Amino acid sequence: MDDVFAYIETNRQRFLDELFALIRQPSISATGEGVEACAAMVLAAMSDAGMQTRRFESEGHPFLYGEAQGAVGAPTILVYGHYDVQPADPLDQWLSPPFEPTVRDGKIYGRGAGDNKGQFFAQIKGIEAVAKTLGGMPVTVKVLLEGEEEVGSPHIARFIAQNKELLAADLVYCSDGHHNYGSRPEVLYGVRGLLYVEVTATGPNRDLHSGNFGGMADSPIERLCRLIPLLKDTDNRVLVPGFYDDVKALSAADAAALADLPFDASAAAENIGLEGLAGDPLASPLEKRLLQPTLNVNGFRGGYIGKGSKTIIPSQATMKMDFRLVDAQQPEKIYAMFKAFLEAEGFGDLEVTHHGMMTPWRTPVDHPAAEPVMRAVEKGFGEPPYRVPSLGGSLPLAAFTQLGAPIFLVPYAQDDEHNHSPNESMGVENYINGIRTMAALIGGKGERAGGRDR
Amino acid sequence: MDDVFAYIETNRQRFLDELFALIRQPSISATGEGVEACAAMVLAAMSDAGMQTRRFESEGHPFLYGEAQGAVGAPTILVYGHYDVQPADPLDQWLSPPFEPTVRDGKIYGRGAGDNKGQFFAQIKGIEAVAKTLGGMPVTVKVLLEGEEEVGSPHIARFIAQNKELLAADLVYCSDGHHNYGSRPEVLYGVRGLLYVEVTATGPNRDLHSGNFGGMADSPIERLCRLIPLLKDTDNRVLVPGFYDDVKALSAADAAALADLPFDASAAAENIGLEGLAGDPLASPLEKRLLQPTLNVNGFRGGYIGKGSKTIIPSQATMKMDFRLVDAQQPEKIYAMFKAFLEAEGFGDLEVTHHGMMTPWRTPVDHPAAEPVMRAVEKGFGEPPYRVPSLGGSLPLAAFTQLGAPIFLVPYAQDDEHNHSPNESMGVENYINGIRTMAALIGGKGERAGGRDR
Repeated sequence: MDDVFAYIETNRQRFLDELFALIRQPSISATGEGVEACAAMVLAAMSDAGMQTRRFESEGHPFLYGEAQGAVGAPTILVYGHYDVQPADPLDQWLSPPFEPTVRDGKIYGRGAGDNKGQFFAQIKGIEAVAKTLGGMPVTVKVLLEGEEEVGSPHIARFIAQNKELLAADLVYCSDGHHNYGSRPEVLYGVRGLLYVEVTATGPNRDLHSGNFGGMADSPIERLCRLIPLLKDTDNRVLVPGFYDDVKALSAADAAALADLPFDASAAAENIGLEGLAGDPLASPLEKRLLQPTLNVNGFRGGYIGKGSKTIIPSQATMKMDFRLVDAQQPEKIYAMFKAFLEAEGFGDLEVTHHGMMTPWRTPVDHPAAEPVMRAVEKGFGEPPYRVPSLGGSLPLAAFTQLGAPIFLVPYAQDDEHNHSPNESMGVENYINGIRTMAALIGGKGERAGGRDR
Repeated sequence: MDDVFAYIETNRQRFLDELFALIRQPSISATGEGVEACAAMVLAAMSDAGMQTRRFESEGHPFLYGEAQGAVGAPTILVYGHYDVQPADPLDQWLSPPFEPTVRDGKIYGRGAGDNKGQFFAQIKGIEAVAKTLGGMPVTVKVLLEGEEEVGSPHIARFIAQNKELLAADLVYCSDGHHNYGSRPEVLYGVRGLLYVEVTATGPNRDLHSGNFGGMADSPIERLCRLIPLLKDTDNRVLVPGFYDDVKALSAADAAALADLPFDASAAAENIGLEGLAGDPLASPLEKRLLQPTLNVNGFRGGYIGKGSKTIIPSQATMKMDFRLVDAQQPEKIYAMFKAFLEAEGFGDLEVTHHGMMTPWRTPVDHPAAEPVMRAVEKGFGEPPYRVPSLGGSLPLAAFTQLGAPIFLVPYAQDDEHNHSPNESMGVENYINGIRTMAALIGGKGERAGGRDR
């Protein structure tokens, strides 16, 4: 790998310049601004890196595909990323223009710098480094880039379902998000799922004078409030019958992985301004964060919320909640369970909708395909990565479980990436180390990426 | 009284024209617009009606006072009203300009037409009719008009306390609000009190990503929700210890008065779009509305309340609630009780404020001073008034209990007055009948307004 890493070092400035050019090109999927021009740049970059490229139209923005064939019988890695970015607003909060990449304090600032241009482009540059240095590819690499991740990936599940042969791989590899445990890199073996629900209670047909109707018409605010103690106990455990049926007990391997993660409950509490973290006698804070399902009320609105007083019994109240799901919990099933629960508890009249579902997925932390990934990250970043059983958050990567291969999520960005926010950034060294990681993953001699796991 | 009523009929158009002029003059206490000019008009009108007038400065808008002396030893009536009006916005919802009084379908439309110009001006015109027709006043009439009722009457309690001799009376009489039981007039013997509280729960020092902190940081929304079942049972009875200590049992006289009031629970429920009214096994709907204290959640806000989804554990949540109070319930005492309850239930960290307190008051429905009032309203409106033990709502009239005289509230406006709203109105006949009522109250021969009740 010395030659490959030397190539990366020699081409360091060019790799940065090319990333800057990519960041300069907006590709805002929500509005469509610049997406086509960006797609063309990305296809050209993949081609320059030695890949055969294809463009697939969708009902939205196109899928971009690149492939570099390895030797016959060599394992296959499928790399996933996205070339679209979030809108840049609020513009006035950027310290430098969002589409004019600027380096400050070792970080590249710009919309999409970390999410996801600086990460998927590192994969392309890593592939290039291997291709240009070794002459041929030790493994087959497939790269799938979508242009709609920031608008909820509405077409990717179907695209994968319709292109299973094309995308067949021994492992699925994605770099997105940022380091969660300081500067040390990490390999994520899963993400929690998500079910986002909104419930609306309707009381009287208009806001009523509370002096006339207090005690005569139930307040929809109060009705929604009464749901909470029925839904959750004070240990934040969900009381919906059957909710935990598909949650596995903590395995020894997961427990060991959690034990290796740095987590200071006192510091975490202090950082968010609390005296302590909420307790759960059945799960440690890290298990709760990563491997337990939760239910969180995200928002509540009803009646008069301006200054001072207005004496009404409001007509409506709305509550937004997310369920974070784990293991085999299916959002559709949890949604049906939740609605049945409302019915059973006398809340069948509430209007219930959902704003999105994501299925959880897990690759076992002791999966054999993980070791080459762990080693590549160590080579790329110069220190061993944390083995993180799951992300606490949710990403729509579950669509790739259709391929039957283990999935690994390896964030390259530093912990203060500020993705989706003003002043998004990607550390210069994080970008370079990402290139080194991808190069190490595909170029490591005799380091097969694991057996095909169907 | 025939001569007095004939005078009113003869001067009908002039009385209307003078009221129109008064409505044309804005007097918005919140902004101060036109208040001074209106005060001058009102003082002149009282003077024209034969009263000695005085103007009392306050820290806000002035109090206006008029007095017409009766014979030595005659009883004294203190009339209260207010010459300020609500702001007129939203202007675009008015069918005719708010300060250009317009008659449609027998109603005078304009800001302040009903609240309170058309009502206190009826009192002045009634006094004028008696003074001009009978030559002298059978009773002493004192009129106190304030210019800050629509901003919460911040100075009236102190003004009364400092002018007890000036304002001494055998009964206090106020016309405000509207008929609540169809077109038939009513005499109200009390109003409920009010305590408006706002509670804020603070969780983490910023909105947190629910994927990272779900189950580790309690949601302030959920904390406030958990208050509700502790505060109220499902019969809408308040669970704060001691809350009902100062509530009297329903008297036979009140029960009889309630039984005489028309109230169709099914129609009331249908009108507000509900299948039925909320039940309380301990109180009928009308008792609940008028003579029982209630607690109502008026508003709730926390976290993300926009469209779609945002997965946060919010930093803060706020709930607004009103307590309607009755009998001897003192808002200050209930407020202390509420805060002690929060403390005892483990919610001592909530931030609690109040946005106003009003003390309840009651005049017994069998008070002897009521009979001349009931008779005067019957003469004025041509049909017997309902005897209503209390208003469900709250008005700051309790300040007058300092005078030790019975208080009566006699709304002159029709039931669709729309006070405080666009297209506020006062029925032409309601105004004329109000004039007749005041004239009958002070001019009724041998009908003394009751003994001094100290």
